[in-house]
Amino acid sequence: MKSDAWLFQLDDRMAAQFRFLIAADKLKSVMRRAIISDESRHENSAEHSWHLTLYAMVLKEWAVGEVDIARVVQMLVLHDLVEIECGDTAIFDEAAAADQEAREQKAADVVFGLLPPDQGAELRALWDEFEAAETVDAKFAKALDRLAPILLNHVVGGGSWKEADMDIAWERRLTHRIEHGAPALWQAANVVFEEAVKNGWMKPAKG
Amino acid sequence: MKSDAWLFQLDDRMAAQFRFLIAADKLKSVMRRAIISDESRHENSAEHSWHLTLYAMVLKEWAVGEVDIARVVQMLVLHDLVEIECGDTAIFDEAAAADQEAREQKAADVVFGLLPPDQGAELRALWDEFEAAETVDAKFAKALDRLAPILLNHVVGGGSWKEADMDIAWERRLTHRIEHGAPALWQAANVVFEEAVKNGWMKPAKG
Repeated sequence: MKSDAWLFQLDDRMAAQFRFLIAADKLKSVMRRAIISDESRHENSAEHSWHLTLYAMVLKEWAVGEVDIARVVQMLVLHDLVEIECGDTAIFDEAAAADQEAREQKAADVVFGLLPPDQGAELRALWDEFEAAETVDAKFAKALDRLAPILLNHVVGGGSWKEADMDIAWERRLTHRIEHGAPALWQAANVVFEEAVKNGWMKPAKG
Repeated sequence: MKSDAWLFQLDDRMAAQFRFLIAADKLKSVMRRAIISDESRHENSAEHSWHLTLYAMVLKEWAVGEVDIARVVQMLVLHDLVEIECGDTAIFDEAAAADQEAREQKAADVVFGLLPPDQGAELRALWDEFEAAETVDAKFAKALDRLAPILLNHVVGGGSWKEADMDIAWERRLTHRIEHGAPALWQAANVVFEEAVKNGWMKPAKG
C-alpha cells in the first residue's frame, strides 16, 4: 500500500473506515478449495461471500424459520473477513480445524479493531452470532455457506470432492448443518450427493 | 455446465432458483478495469460487488439521507449481475456507454427471467431502482460504486487512471454522482484526486 498521508486530511472516523475497507480488499486474494463454474481457477473468499449473499436473497423461503434478510446478508458479507488475517481453513482439513477457532478469534480482534470502536463492536457481534450458529439467521447463513460449494462441485464435475477423495458419508458429516438452517435445502444437497456418487465424483459410503 | 438432470428431482421453484444461482457464478469471470490492492490482477465484478456491500455497511452514516441498509446492500449484490449476459462497461469507455442502457435492459430480462416470476420481478425492481438512481438508497449505492475504484486506484498507485491517461476534470465528471449520494465522501474523493495529481498518477486540469 502506498503512503496514506492523505487519510490524515480526513475526519478521523472516516479515515478509520477507509483503512478497514482497504484492508478488507485482501479477501480477494484468499483462495478456497472450490473451483468456479467456468473451471478456470479456484474461488476466492470475497467472491464466495458475494455469491452467498445472493443465495440468501433467493433461497430465504427455505430457511428453518423466518429470517431477517438484512441481518443474514450482513453476516454473510462479514463471515470470512477474518481470513485476511488468518487465511481460509478448508472444512475437510481436520488438523487445521483444531485451532481454527482460536486463530479466528484473534484475527477478529485485529480486523474489527480497525474500525471506530462502536462500529467494530456492532460488526463483531454479527460475526460472533454467525460463528455461534444458534439464532435462526445464523443457522440459515451457515447452511448457505455449506450449500454453495456443493452446487459448484456439481457444476464442475467433482471439483474439491475429487481433490479430497471424498466419500458420501464424510461429505454428509461435513455439511449436515445445512439441515439445521434449511431442511429442504439439505434434501436437495442429498440429491446432489447421490448424483455425484453415480457420476464417480465422490466415493459411495463404505459398505 | 454438467448435466442438470438432478435438478428435475427438485421442486420446480427451487430448481429455478438453483439455475439462477449457478448462472450468477459467471460474474466471477467478468473483469473490471480496477486492479486489486495486492496488484496481482484486475478485479472481477463479483468480488467488487462484495466489497461494495461492506462499504455500505461501514459508510452508511455519510449517506445524503437516512438509508435502509437492507435495501442498499441487496441493490449492491444485484447491481452488476446483468454483466453475466452483457459484460462490464468501463465508465470511461464512452463508445460502449452509448448503448449500455439498452444492452443492460435486455440482459436483465434474461437474467432475472431465470427466477420464479414473483421473485424475478422483486429483484428486477430493486435493480431498476438502482439504475434510476432517484431514491436515497439508490443514490447512496451508486455513490459507493464510484467511490470504491477511487480508493483502489490510490492504493495501487494510479491503476486504471494511468491506464486511461486520466485527468482530474474528466475523473471528477465521471464520479461526481458521489456528491448526490454522500456529500462527505465526495469531499474525501477530491482529497484523493488532489493527491493523485501530486503523485503524477492523474493529469492536472487543463489550464
